[in-house]
Order: sequence, then structure tokens, then C-alpha cells
Amino acid sequence: MNTLRIHGGRIDFAAVRYPDAPRPWLDLSTGINSVAWTPALELAVDVTTLPSPDAILALEAAAADMFGTRPDRVVALPGSEIGLRLLDGLDLPAPVHYAVPSYGTHREAIAGAVPVARAAINEIDGGTLILANPNNPDGIRDTPARLLALLGRGGWLVVDEAFADATPESSIAPVLGDDDRAIVFRSFGKFFGLPGVRLGFMIAPPGQVTAMRGRLGSWPISAHAAAYGIAAYRDTDWIAQARIAIAARAARLDALLADHGLVAQGDCPLFRLVESDAAAVLFERLACAGILSRPFDYAPRWLRLGVPGSDAGFARLERALAHG
Amino acid sequence: MNTLRIHGGRIDFAAVRYPDAPRPWLDLSTGINSVAWTPALELAVDVTTLPSPDAILALEAAAADMFGTRPDRVVALPGSEIGLRLLDGLDLPAPVHYAVPSYGTHREAIAGAVPVARAAINEIDGGTLILANPNNPDGIRDTPARLLALLGRGGWLVVDEAFADATPESSIAPVLGDDDRAIVFRSFGKFFGLPGVRLGFMIAPPGQVTAMRGRLGSWPISAHAAAYGIAAYRDTDWIAQARIAIAARAARLDALLADHGLVAQGDCPLFRLVESDAAAVLFERLACAGILSRPFDYAPRWLRLGVPGSDAGFARLERALAHG
Repeated sequence: MNTLRIHGGRIDFAAVRYPDAPRPWLDLSTGINSVAWTPALELAVDVTTLPSPDAILALEAAAADMFGTRPDRVVALPGSEIGLRLLDGLDLPAPVHYAVPSYGTHREAIAGAVPVARAAINEIDGGTLILANPNNPDGIRDTPARLLALLGRGGWLVVDEAFADATPESSIAPVLGDDDRAIVFRSFGKFFGLPGVRLGFMIAPPGQVTAMRGRLGSWPISAHAAAYGIAAYRDTDWIAQARIAIAARAARLDALLADHGLVAQGDCPLFRLVESDAAAVLFERLACAGILSRPFDYAPRWLRLGVPGSDAGFARLERALAHG
Repeated sequence: MNTLRIHGGRIDFAAVRYPDAPRPWLDLSTGINSVAWTPALELAVDVTTLPSPDAILALEAAAADMFGTRPDRVVALPGSEIGLRLLDGLDLPAPVHYAVPSYGTHREAIAGAVPVARAAINEIDGGTLILANPNNPDGIRDTPARLLALLGRGGWLVVDEAFADATPESSIAPVLGDDDRAIVFRSFGKFFGLPGVRLGFMIAPPGQVTAMRGRLGSWPISAHAAAYGIAAYRDTDWIAQARIAIAARAARLDALLADHGLVAQGDCPLFRLVESDAAAVLFERLACAGILSRPFDYAPRWLRLGVPGSDAGFARLERALAHG
């Protein structure tokens, strides 16, 4: 059970713990878009050569277009998770604070980092502050204006925008200049529904861009990551339609939960947080129906739900909630 | 030209510098096997979920079988290049030496590292020594017994075995125990001819295994890397035949070079080093024929040649050498 309270996506573990649950499992334990981008034509991927620097430049340019920033401020990473864990090589100033509650990796990213309540981040002066926006797991969104105001207090800001693609207006990336002491992380897999590709990005001032490239070496990402990323970020029609569809599915989930007396919190359309005395019971009921949700070791009244990607998924969730 | 003297594999750059060279280029600028492993059946790769921990365990077990070590000593990496660059988070003791000449990344892996001539590594006591075996670019091979003797001198040893798969008898991995202060890096892409997959491994004692897993986070490699690695490392028939074929092609290259008065150095069958006053002229002649070799900024009399993978490749090289 502990594993399921620490990471989403552990269907393998859930299947062992709930052997009688109907298969296949419906995985609502992550915030990954369950309607994945797929290439119009099969991607031509050459794994027999190293990804060319030109391909990585093309990828960073396509991603920069989506992020609303300049390509030379963007560094492709083999997943934003590794990027966060390389932060401690970027000489960010102490003390380092990370906002809580949030993504567990933020605690581990820089040795000696100290937690600070999200509500109290305005009181931090100097040093480095790590936070997520939209936040995970509560879906709270800060405006770029509020985060810019934090920058005015003299410290460095690290914003994990892993879930920002669905709501680009919440991203700070387009308003940052090279003199702003801010680093932004983006994730490819969540919005595009392709986490197995392992692709993420850092957006940063020139010094941190150079330092991160040095940490990664000359071949930071795979040939598949370059091919998927270039094609998906350039697929602006799919991106626009996905934003609309993701918002619609989130609203449908809100309505379904409300029908069963559950109030969904947060403002990130890729997942919803339910706070309830019945959270543990609800997790168990869903698990017995082959639906994996995400409980939290540090907050037993919380349950995070990803958003079903199909009518069948919604129907299955509705049945599980109804037969309580 | 400088770029071509620092990295292999830059066909993009060569094509700009030699616009009239016949295409496609024959890339002999790396030590990557030019006869790549290909799956018997198309690999089933699910990029819509995170690579499961079970898949990574299966990969590390298959790789451990090939390396002759235990799976729990093996950590999958998104390329051995990134692994080398994460060495400085493993608390290895100072002073750090790296043997020269060797792979450029060794110089950058740990801040403050000091070069030591390969011939003088016996004189190092304590601290940490980084070297490659087989060495690159000169192909020199040390026996496991000699490297074990170095371990007896009290320091830590980091052995980059990126090119060891073709000659497994040169690997130190099978003879290391958990009490040995040694870390080994392996590369998937070179022997299997698939560098675009970005997959490598660290073999290390328990403390360093735990530390490296912490540096990488929970999803270190892509779904494609897991699928390719599991299938290829289990393909023991291909591995056995590839070792024979690689050795035969290296002998054929030696004979061809000898026919043209060039003596190939080294004992790594994935590449050969030529030392000659005519190295720069030879590079130019090959480039004009659309064949990229690897010159070195620090050794103008050297030229490293990868091994052609086909009769056509050998014939093209022979023509270029003959029309000198």
C-alpha cells in the first residue's frame, strides 16, 4: 500500500495487491493525459546514429514556440525528473525552500532544502524557492503576475510547470527575460500522454542553460524523444483541440464526482483532488473495481483522480462510485 | 574543422564543410558497430505509460547476464555519458585522476580532476582513478588482473568499459565483489550499433548503486530503451555471432590499411588508430571521398577509423586509399 501512496502509475503493484480486480486496470493515479498524441504518419526514427545536434536544435525550437520563449533559453532533458535532480549543480543560492504540498522530487532536488507552506511563499526573501504551477496534487494555480512579484524579492525561483501545457495562460515562461532569476521546467509526457518517451525541458537564463548542457553532455535525449517531440510540438491543431478536450473531460469528471457528493478541488484539468473523510474507503472501492487512484502518505483525507479519456472509462468510474 | 576533431559522428558538420563529397557519407568517425542489432519481431513499445519498474528490473537482469555480474549491482542509465557526468555526486575520494589520452568526458566528469599518463597509473595511490578499458582512441587493453592490482593500492577505480562488449575477456565486471572499490560503466549503443536509443549502465557496490538511483529518480530510461535493451541483451545468438563478425571485420580493416602502408594500432575491434605524419592529409582525402574519420585536436599525427560494416564500405575505403 505504501508504494501506491508515494507514486502514481504503479499498476503493476496494484494488480498484485488486488488480484481479483477486473482487468485491464483503469489508471487514474497520474495526471497524464489518457488520450495520447499519435503521429499522423509513422515517425521515421533512426536509432543507428546519435541524435544529431540539428535535431535537438529543431526540437528545442518547436518546444520554445509552444512555451512562448526563445529557443536558446530551452534545454532538452531526458525527462523533467532528471532535470530537477540536476538543479543542485546550477549553483543556486541558499537557503533553498520548496513549497509544500507538492511533487515529492522537489524535496530531494537540492540537498538541505527546507519546506515552506505554499500560502507562506510571499514571506521568503532571497535564496531559492522551488514550486509547481499548476501545483500537484492540489491543482492550485498561481498567476504569472504573482510569481513575477516573488521574483522582485531578490531570490531565485524554480517553477515546475509539468502540468502547464493544458493551461498556457498559467505559464511564467513567456514573460521571463534573461535578467530574471527564474528557471522553468516543462514535461513532454503529461500533456501529450507519452511519458514513456522521457522528454522534458528547462527554460533558463544563459548561465544555467550552459551549466545544464554541461551536466548532460552532447547527447542528452534519444532519437525517439527527438522525433516524437519535434512532430508533436509542431502539431498545433492537435494541441489546440487537446486543450479544449482536456478541459471538457475535466468538467465532466467534476460533474460526475458532484453527482456522488464529492467536491473536486483545484484548477488543473489533468487531475482533480478530492478531500474527504471517506478518501481511504473510496480508494479501496475504486481499486476493487480495477480503478487505481492516488492516495497520499502525508494526507490521508486526500485522493487524486486523473481524468478518464473515454466514455467507457467514465462509465466504469460511475459504476464504481454508484455501487458504494 | 575543430568540431570534427572533438567529437565523432558529426556527419552534419562534415557535409557542410565538404559539400562536394559524394553522398551518403560513410561514417567511420566513431567506434559504433555499423551492423546494428535488429529485432526479430517488431518491438512492442508502449510510450503511453511510464516504463514500469518491472521492465527496468528485467533490463538490468538481462544486462547483468551479459556483463557477468549480479542484477542488483547494475543501474540502467539514459546513456553512459550522463552516468559519467553524475559521478561527482557519488562522493568518490580526492584526488581524482583520469588517464590520458582517453575519452574527453573523463576530464569533465569530476571537477578538479587531474590527468595522469596511462603508462603511469601504477604510481597512483589512493584517491580516484578514471580510465577506459579498452581505451579510446588508442584501443589499448589492460587485463582485469592488472586493474585488480591497481585496486589493491587503496583507491577507487572507475573503468569506462563502453567498448568492452566485443571482447568480454577484457571486462573487470565479472571479478568484482561488493567490497571492491570499483565502478564500471557500460554502453548499449556501441556494440549493438544503436546509439540513438541512449542506454548505458553503471555496475557498482551497493552504496553507489543507491546514490546513482537517487540522482536519476524513478524513471531513468525510456520505454524504447527498456524494450531494445531487454530484447538485445537476451539475444545471445546474435551477440556471439556479432563478436566473431566484428573481429573478422577489424582484421579485414587491418589488412586493407597494411596494403596501403598504414599500421593499425590497438586491440579494440570496433575501431583502429593510425599514427602517421600523413594523418591530416589522409583525413582530407577520405573526407573528399565522403568518408568521415576522426582526427584529434591534441594529437595531429592520429587518425581513428571505425570499421566498415559491408563489402561496399570496404570497397569505398579501398578506392579512397588507392587514389591518394
